[in-house]
Amino acid sequence: MLRAHLARRRPPIHLLAVRATRTRHLQNEGQLTSLRTLPIARSSHPKPAIYLRSGWLGGTLFAAALAFVTIAPVLAATDDIKATNFLLDNGMEVVVIPDHRAPIVTHMVWYKIGSADEPPGKSGIAHFFEHLMFKATAKHAAGELTRAVAEIGGSHNAFTSYDYTAFYERVAPSALEQMMSFEADRMRNLTLTDDVVNTERDVILEERRLRIDNDPEAVLNEEVVTTLWQSQPYRIPVIGWMHEIEKLNRTDAVAFYDNYYRPNNAVLVVAGDVEPETVKSLAEKTYGKVPRGPDLPPRTRPVEPEQNTRRTVTLTDARVSVPNFLTQWVVPSYHTAKPGEAEALDLLAEILGGGSRSRLYQQLVVKQGIAAEAGAFFQGNMLDATNFTVYGAPRGDAKLADIEAAVDAEIARIARNGVTSDELEKTKERFIRSVIFAHDEQNSVANMYGSTLATGGNVKDVEEWPDRIRNVTADQVKAVAARYLVSDHSTTGYLLPKEN
Amino acid sequence: MLRAHLARRRPPIHLLAVRATRTRHLQNEGQLTSLRTLPIARSSHPKPAIYLRSGWLGGTLFAAALAFVTIAPVLAATDDIKATNFLLDNGMEVVVIPDHRAPIVTHMVWYKIGSADEPPGKSGIAHFFEHLMFKATAKHAAGELTRAVAEIGGSHNAFTSYDYTAFYERVAPSALEQMMSFEADRMRNLTLTDDVVNTERDVILEERRLRIDNDPEAVLNEEVVTTLWQSQPYRIPVIGWMHEIEKLNRTDAVAFYDNYYRPNNAVLVVAGDVEPETVKSLAEKTYGKVPRGPDLPPRTRPVEPEQNTRRTVTLTDARVSVPNFLTQWVVPSYHTAKPGEAEALDLLAEILGGGSRSRLYQQLVVKQGIAAEAGAFFQGNMLDATNFTVYGAPRGDAKLADIEAAVDAEIARIARNGVTSDELEKTKERFIRSVIFAHDEQNSVANMYGSTLATGGNVKDVEEWPDRIRNVTADQVKAVAARYLVSDHSTTGYLLPKEN
Repeated sequence: MLRAHLARRRPPIHLLAVRATRTRHLQNEGQLTSLRTLPIARSSHPKPAIYLRSGWLGGTLFAAALAFVTIAPVLAATDDIKATNFLLDNGMEVVVIPDHRAPIVTHMVWYKIGSADEPPGKSGIAHFFEHLMFKATAKHAAGELTRAVAEIGGSHNAFTSYDYTAFYERVAPSALEQMMSFEADRMRNLTLTDDVVNTERDVILEERRLRIDNDPEAVLNEEVVTTLWQSQPYRIPVIGWMHEIEKLNRTDAVAFYDNYYRPNNAVLVVAGDVEPETVKSLAEKTYGKVPRGPDLPPRTRPVEPEQNTRRTVTLTDARVSVPNFLTQWVVPSYHTAKPGEAEALDLLAEILGGGSRSRLYQQLVVKQGIAAEAGAFFQGNMLDATNFTVYGAPRGDAKLADIEAAVDAEIARIARNGVTSDELEKTKERFIRSVIFAHDEQNSVANMYGSTLATGGNVKDVEEWPDRIRNVTADQVKAVAARYLVSDHSTTGYLLPKEN
Repeated sequence: MLRAHLARRRPPIHLLAVRATRTRHLQNEGQLTSLRTLPIARSSHPKPAIYLRSGWLGGTLFAAALAFVTIAPVLAATDDIKATNFLLDNGMEVVVIPDHRAPIVTHMVWYKIGSADEPPGKSGIAHFFEHLMFKATAKHAAGELTRAVAEIGGSHNAFTSYDYTAFYERVAPSALEQMMSFEADRMRNLTLTDDVVNTERDVILEERRLRIDNDPEAVLNEEVVTTLWQSQPYRIPVIGWMHEIEKLNRTDAVAFYDNYYRPNNAVLVVAGDVEPETVKSLAEKTYGKVPRGPDLPPRTRPVEPEQNTRRTVTLTDARVSVPNFLTQWVVPSYHTAKPGEAEALDLLAEILGGGSRSRLYQQLVVKQGIAAEAGAFFQGNMLDATNFTVYGAPRGDAKLADIEAAVDAEIARIARNGVTSDELEKTKERFIRSVIFAHDEQNSVANMYGSTLATGGNVKDVEEWPDRIRNVTADQVKAVAARYLVSDHSTTGYLLPKEN
């Protein structure tokens, strides 16, 4: 229903909290918006304004935001937060992170199913379920969950990304059992009639029209991603292609639901004012009643062939006023990288372009004053190989080509000369601290665990992450820059104003 | 076996015959070779040197050559050639084109299975069968067919393309039954052991290394095609990606063979010194004994979303001496086009860049003398949307950018001003005549029917083609140029020498 749909469009609180800290020019430049469909958020970090811009895009793109929550050092960094994890008999994984500072719990269910798992020709079906899950079940009318959450002053949301689809509620601890009961119910009992499916499909088509097709930056971004990836399914937009969404029907929906919406394909994450024993007993009472589904095959997807060329994608549009560019490379993710490489890529992104202390920002925005923006990010928490991105936009009389050349020069400098030991140590501390600050938001903590567990990682990966970051050497940072950020194997998107 | 493999690498006679008519510079420029993996041949046309270059690439790329044999006006154009077609009881389609000028028959079996039908992650499996089909069956040792053909002074070959895989023998009519018996046998009785599959996989890996990975033009071409197509499976190389070929195994092979190598998924084409009744009786005796397989689902593949951007793909390599470019657009094929559009695209390709009388050749190569080559082609005979390509290379002091700009200007001129009535009529006659000349080669005639029937067409489409070409108006040619050859929705590949 519309109400549920609107509710899901609210940006999460931890992203909203960051909004105030961003300067205006960073919030307004076009490039950031073009990153919408990428999974690119990191909490408590100067970058999240990117994701704030995504906020209005609703579930899917808020979705996108969460995918990049970096593996967090929850246990290692604090003594008062402890994660406990266990399996229910039906195969559902559970992670509990008690946090008694406020009488709130964040309750999330992560399904290990995202757009990259969709059958060929059925793009958009994963995101479709982000919507369909708010429809009626045998037990609850559509809108009941939303009403229940609203009545107790809670919030709820859902999001879809390449590797997962997740649903959450943030409520008082007393409502946890009720939320579990709602989630356990809709895991298997949706009433998927032709009418329900076809009506919601129209909503999604309109969503796509508004958020992608009417927005040159979103269109460009889709085609950059499609061009970067030659084979791996991250090339296909999370929201789906219009002509494929149009054809999704009840049969597709039922097949997808039956395959993937199963306790043995889900991770329950509960963070907040509750004890593991309580969660366990409530989970057994609710989710525990859902029968285990058939074993799913390993999530083995087509992998990326060698990159051998430099590619560009250009969109020229009358609605563009300030041009911008972004360049992407295929790099390993935390799940696919050799030990230390993903951590080195994370630090490279930080040093090169991770906010106002970064080289790109200091050099191009602050010192030379030629860029309205310039930055870099690495999307580490992905099941398969992922991307490393740099971006920039000119300011004043500067030309886009100048900014691009200056960004390239900074990359080349690191690839050639490496980073200083002082710079590296300061960045490590800043980076780890920025992630630790995320603890102040239950959502973020839950997201860290959920996104890690949904992309092939485990609780230990989350816990050991700060130490792995601390162990990265300057040579490793230089090595990943030299090895992966090769201009001849990059894909660059240009958003250009129309010249008349 | 090696011998069979080598035999299949021979370029077909009708392509060899054209070799002598080509000037040296056209045979040598790099651009042509970069078109190798595209299905781009048209018999009796100045362009085929492109495909001669492909000849040494063996089955697959000879394969590619045949895909572009344009629908031919066999019946309409001559009185002494008449095609007859019928179905065997097991669903195998048969086309017979009697031609008694010489005591030779061309016997072809076309399977309606090509690289675009491969399961995700299994690229190369269709081409793999082009090889495996020369291995032992329960009845015949590997190499027996090759020996039998050689003993009677015949020739044989096989090729794979996006939409089909085909096998043929050119022999004396007295050997037709024997050939049918060999083909009917290997349709179902291959002995697919681990040893056979793994050994041939190594041959194919070496083939890919030699013919793609060691050749910058072939590498560029692969990534141009991958970049042009966002979704449609023509984006995946016919030969397959190295990392996916490496993993193909006996299980994949058996599944593929059992699915697709069935009489009800095959078209038999026999051209030459034989009567339809004879073919029918021999076909019933041989192929007719092969049981019908399960019905195959419709060949519905992911289709292409809107093209919204201009893309480039650049490969810079020390082995390149003369730079070149090619630009491609997504356009409808004969199978997907509205009435008249594919015919108009064929004529547009002819007028713009179809050989030495074309505008591009006359303007850039002859008059201005700035281009070593410049041309255009349209790949009409494809099951799904296809591509329209222009290409060029500089000569002397001319720069690549000059050639590209000049080619763009010629396109813009047609899109703006159209073509003259005189130019159109002359081109129609030349074009139809060039295809009619193909009758002199049985292979070509058989290819026309086979490729048309394997890409959703029928015998009537072949027969009516010349009249449909004659009916194209100048306005239609202008309209397809203006509608499809839009610079902002094109993909251009650049092959550049390495600057030191």
